[in-house]
Amino acid sequence: MNCDEYAVPGFLANGISAGIKEQGRKDLALIFSEVPARAAGVFTTNCFKAAPVLVDMERISAGAAQAIVTNSGNANAATGERGYRDALAMSRAASKELKISDDLVLVASTGVIGHPLPLEVIERGMEPLVEGLRRDGIPDAEAAMMTTDRFPKMSCRKGMIGSREVTLCGIAKGAGMIQPNMATMLAYLMTDADVDGEALRAVFQEGIAQSFNAITVDGCMSTNDTALILANGSAGNRQIRRRSREYAPFREMLFAVLDDLCRGMVRDGEGATKLIELVVDGARNRGEARRVAYAVANSNLVKTAFYGGDPNWGRIISAAGSIGIPLPTQSVRLFFEEVCLFEAGQGTAFPTDRVAAIMAQETIRVRLELGMGTGSFRIYASDLSFEYVKINAHYHT
Amino acid sequence: MNCDEYAVPGFLANGISAGIKEQGRKDLALIFSEVPARAAGVFTTNCFKAAPVLVDMERISAGAAQAIVTNSGNANAATGERGYRDALAMSRAASKELKISDDLVLVASTGVIGHPLPLEVIERGMEPLVEGLRRDGIPDAEAAMMTTDRFPKMSCRKGMIGSREVTLCGIAKGAGMIQPNMATMLAYLMTDADVDGEALRAVFQEGIAQSFNAITVDGCMSTNDTALILANGSAGNRQIRRRSREYAPFREMLFAVLDDLCRGMVRDGEGATKLIELVVDGARNRGEARRVAYAVANSNLVKTAFYGGDPNWGRIISAAGSIGIPLPTQSVRLFFEEVCLFEAGQGTAFPTDRVAAIMAQETIRVRLELGMGTGSFRIYASDLSFEYVKINAHYHT
Repeated sequence: MNCDEYAVPGFLANGISAGIKEQGRKDLALIFSEVPARAAGVFTTNCFKAAPVLVDMERISAGAAQAIVTNSGNANAATGERGYRDALAMSRAASKELKISDDLVLVASTGVIGHPLPLEVIERGMEPLVEGLRRDGIPDAEAAMMTTDRFPKMSCRKGMIGSREVTLCGIAKGAGMIQPNMATMLAYLMTDADVDGEALRAVFQEGIAQSFNAITVDGCMSTNDTALILANGSAGNRQIRRRSREYAPFREMLFAVLDDLCRGMVRDGEGATKLIELVVDGARNRGEARRVAYAVANSNLVKTAFYGGDPNWGRIISAAGSIGIPLPTQSVRLFFEEVCLFEAGQGTAFPTDRVAAIMAQETIRVRLELGMGTGSFRIYASDLSFEYVKINAHYHT
Repeated sequence: MNCDEYAVPGFLANGISAGIKEQGRKDLALIFSEVPARAAGVFTTNCFKAAPVLVDMERISAGAAQAIVTNSGNANAATGERGYRDALAMSRAASKELKISDDLVLVASTGVIGHPLPLEVIERGMEPLVEGLRRDGIPDAEAAMMTTDRFPKMSCRKGMIGSREVTLCGIAKGAGMIQPNMATMLAYLMTDADVDGEALRAVFQEGIAQSFNAITVDGCMSTNDTALILANGSAGNRQIRRRSREYAPFREMLFAVLDDLCRGMVRDGEGATKLIELVVDGARNRGEARRVAYAVANSNLVKTAFYGGDPNWGRIISAAGSIGIPLPTQSVRLFFEEVCLFEAGQGTAFPTDRVAAIMAQETIRVRLELGMGTGSFRIYASDLSFEYVKINAHYHT
């Protein structure tokens, strides 16, 4: 069930303008759990990991956290030894002000790469940031994480775990460098559920694989991608464990929130005008379905065709056929919604009015059946517009 | 040595407007050798091969050809059984008019995918096409192959093979779907050299691997890519064989012509404003150097940064680090021309004036040193502009 407000029992949040970004835009965010929470995280697999990612990867291994401090406007990436020291100093500034152990603070940064973090500005902002912490501060925290995002990505659900009502709220920022494993993307999930550490890690990893690791805006992977979940147990539910009956309903809630955030992120992909929900099935296995899905979803020719409203099935099958997986070309079928556009090695005489209506939709479901096996993969992708080029040609280092 | 004109002894050519494309644009091309020539070809590896590609792959295996007939405006791709029959009929129309064996005719088509070939129009055009064949007809043939190309790609060299002067001329069309293995790309090489069949196949394959299979405009691979070489022996040189001393000078001529065509093709990539000559070296092997090179060259964030004139080294190293090859991040170095922008895990204090001047160049040499081994790969790439989106959002099926 959706919530009326973005708030989770036992969590406080805030977002302020500290002066990292120009013109008073919010740029410093804090999420705080009143008690230490169980925590899990998934991070970029890029070799060039930003300093805050390195800090978080170490800390999260203990499975507990109480605060997440985030700045936008500067990614603290490719900043060498100094960057790592700065990330630690940013954490210390938060833990000192919050009067908690430094090990319980996670840090994240997003923005330009290769510039030293404006540490003094961040340190100066910590006092008002902590002072302003409040139950309904999550939307402000979200606002302070945004870079080129056009709108906030937030989702909140309530559900019953046994006899207790549990709340799960997620916030995320995009919007460029969106590709699996993962995006320039920060996502934080907060819940008052009591979840065992192993169960939390397992369900979060599974959820990320099917959500943030199955979307693409531009096929690029960032140095800073971070997804974190904090579960503080305030709901007092019977603890959710891997094999307990509480696991399934919690998994369902989490997946619903992650799906909301993902769709929002792709829809807000840089310059995106459409969301393409592409399912590749009939592959020999899930890995091959995934490779075909990404080949199609990252094809600039496919993406520009969707932008132009052109049902260019030729570009889709050409992209699918180009990556070295042998396809049975006579068995491949392509659908836009319920309409088959390609089968038996050639285009069909599809109803042009109906397809024109489909191409005008904001969300377009595309299904590519390979006819080889049972492997399947679903991906959300955006189109490629003038606006994407404009944003990225002029977003300077 | 470059030539004054595009002509090769023993070859005739022509290009006319048959009426496939609108408004009298040239759309039917013929290359004809006065005697049967040794022939070799390299074709798209896409599963969805266009009908003319299937015809040529069969015929080229015999190692001989005398004519290449090409139409633009329609790719005869994804056209099923009918497409294959149409490709054969197009070949027969040419062989009949030329009065040669049908097996010696190669066919190619480029243009929209999924529409039946306008066979009658092509058949009607064959008589004037053959009548107009002439020594200096190569530029007209090139013009008739072009689709979204903005300028012709032609190169002609002369050189001595033993005591005989030999001519080698190449023509090519791009300009979208340019990516290795190969592009929506047609390239024809004509030479009067006498080359043994095995040597011709070997040198052509090696040349294509280093030229057309090492460029990218948009990371897409076409269904129609075809590169053909015809060597008719009119020069009367001592036959070039795999291990003869004539092999090296012929190889050098061929590589120079292929390099000219490749650079032209990338420079004429859809919407391209810059040519990026990217060398990745210090990889563990050539295959990994190639993967890193393509990850960087196909990154939309990198391509838009070059378009915007922004020396965004962060996007380059981020792309390099994103594909699962473990890089020694402290050893990686990045150069634009002679200037180092990144080393020891962070950006350098590079001279901004000099780098601004480099970013304004039409051709920019970028070198990424990985510091792991001796594997190296060079790639030519284009940038990503508004114009690319415009062309591809509005090029309708």
